[in-house]
Amino acid sequence: MTSELGVEEAIHGLFDALAAQSDLEILAVGDPNVLEPLLAKGPSALRSRAHLSPATEVIGMDEEPGQAFKTKKDASVSVACRLVKEGKAEAAISAGNTGASMAAATLTLGRLEGVRRPAILTFLPNGKGRTALMDSGAVTDCRPEDLVQWAIMGNLYLQHARGVAEPRVGLLSIGEEDKKGNAQTLETLPLLRQAPLKFIGNVEGRDIFDGSCDLVVCDGFVGNVVLKTAEGLAKMIMSELRAEYEQASKLGQLGGYLSKPVFASLRKTLSPDEAGGGALLGVAGNFIITHGHSNRVMLRNAIRVAADCIRHDVTAKMAHAFKPAA
Amino acid sequence: MTSELGVEEAIHGLFDALAAQSDLEILAVGDPNVLEPLLAKGPSALRSRAHLSPATEVIGMDEEPGQAFKTKKDASVSVACRLVKEGKAEAAISAGNTGASMAAATLTLGRLEGVRRPAILTFLPNGKGRTALMDSGAVTDCRPEDLVQWAIMGNLYLQHARGVAEPRVGLLSIGEEDKKGNAQTLETLPLLRQAPLKFIGNVEGRDIFDGSCDLVVCDGFVGNVVLKTAEGLAKMIMSELRAEYEQASKLGQLGGYLSKPVFASLRKTLSPDEAGGGALLGVAGNFIITHGHSNRVMLRNAIRVAADCIRHDVTAKMAHAFKPAA
Repeated sequence: MTSELGVEEAIHGLFDALAAQSDLEILAVGDPNVLEPLLAKGPSALRSRAHLSPATEVIGMDEEPGQAFKTKKDASVSVACRLVKEGKAEAAISAGNTGASMAAATLTLGRLEGVRRPAILTFLPNGKGRTALMDSGAVTDCRPEDLVQWAIMGNLYLQHARGVAEPRVGLLSIGEEDKKGNAQTLETLPLLRQAPLKFIGNVEGRDIFDGSCDLVVCDGFVGNVVLKTAEGLAKMIMSELRAEYEQASKLGQLGGYLSKPVFASLRKTLSPDEAGGGALLGVAGNFIITHGHSNRVMLRNAIRVAADCIRHDVTAKMAHAFKPAA
Repeated sequence: MTSELGVEEAIHGLFDALAAQSDLEILAVGDPNVLEPLLAKGPSALRSRAHLSPATEVIGMDEEPGQAFKTKKDASVSVACRLVKEGKAEAAISAGNTGASMAAATLTLGRLEGVRRPAILTFLPNGKGRTALMDSGAVTDCRPEDLVQWAIMGNLYLQHARGVAEPRVGLLSIGEEDKKGNAQTLETLPLLRQAPLKFIGNVEGRDIFDGSCDLVVCDGFVGNVVLKTAEGLAKMIMSELRAEYEQASKLGQLGGYLSKPVFASLRKTLSPDEAGGGALLGVAGNFIITHGHSNRVMLRNAIRVAADCIRHDVTAKMAHAFKPAA
């Protein structure tokens, strides 16, 4: 309901996902007055798999998350989480206020037994595929034990939802040597060495993009800075390219024209839309958080991420890994 | 002496700088057996402004910085700092072990009175010019007061060495709203609001690259991650472009050929070589740290940064700003 590009864009994403995956059914949660006409406009062959689930309230992007979650019991994100909790849906997706989504998911679904802080796993392009980054912004101040739990959760996610047999896990730091880092990473490094992982030690920001590791672990503040730095730089490079072509010779401009397919492909590789959404791992249910200004491509892909979580029973795998021995 | 691309590359950078700036004299500090023949090979018109200053030891890239600084009294970086301390040089530049450079500069030159932790200011491209980032990796665990001091030092640097009348200063965080951030930034934000700066509040990773601020302040761990993330992504994008062209149609490949000048210009915009080196601000003397694998372009530009510091008397400006009232 609160996606910054509007509800219509979200519904387009919903139908795109239904078209791409014939075994899905999707519930659109929100104001029936808004959603009903939009769902009615969808392709007739798909409409029977698109359902409406009413919610009378919405949490705005600027609202204080904890407060909004408490007072707006019938907010769309809370209703979506309750559907999962009650077994009426197998995953929930939110493109709204990240803090409120976190609160709704954590408090409605609950944390998995043994998990300290649920966190968000997202993907960045690395030329050969994608590198997972966790945490991407859920937990801004964390303990070394949290980083170790995220490494374990991210590892399980890559193994089960993405089929990476033995994910290479790195700790984001500022040098590869063991003694490089800050107080947090220096304390975390020996703990990760003892964890049941293919831990490759400290990695640097540049290693995220060269395909040398599958999962990079960092605190949510640093992870969010990495995501937004990459987003900003990629955008700047594309607009610099445009500006350079504008100032180029006639032949250079022809070069730009002939290069259009190359740039379209590059833009697709770099686009966060392709990764879809970030899975919130560590809660007792599948929950996907996407960008507040997600377009239909990103929403379709976020739904694909959710479907992957369902098909591979990701939450059950996490629950099993963290369940304290009886 | 320890630059990863070799001493010859460094000496090329030295002569390039002498050619570009006729009022400079440069001392090459290190092993005379290595340096003398290289200096003798330089352009004859420039040789009279290139001097040799002997140092018998070097600190390797892998040595423990504090220990190496203590035991190797005659290391080239220490000799260079002593030349500044004794007034025989007006700035020192190191492309070696960053930790050892920091130790040599901080302990030989000393901190400016009133400065808690010296830190490194570097530049990133933003499409319109460059955005300064401070700290870039000197101090990995810091206090809010340090961030405030860096904002003040960076602000002075931009005003005096770069002629930015009223630098826009932002605090790197994970959302623009005041309540977004981690414990460190939340505590720092109100302090920066009270500082004598044009403080524009929290900024995000993407704002570094859009020209909306002149100086971004963050702790050295985060700053170093930002630098290396940007470096890694830029490299990945350039190699993706190459790969895309290789797979393109004949016409697409022609497009790539005709676009060569555009890519050369883009590569130059993105290259860290253009920014030169990072100024270590807060020590009692001008000291520039550059990449361990600096090429001649980067070294020439690092020397330009040093010359800017000298010409605009940057250290004196800092000293004046931090001197406690008598």
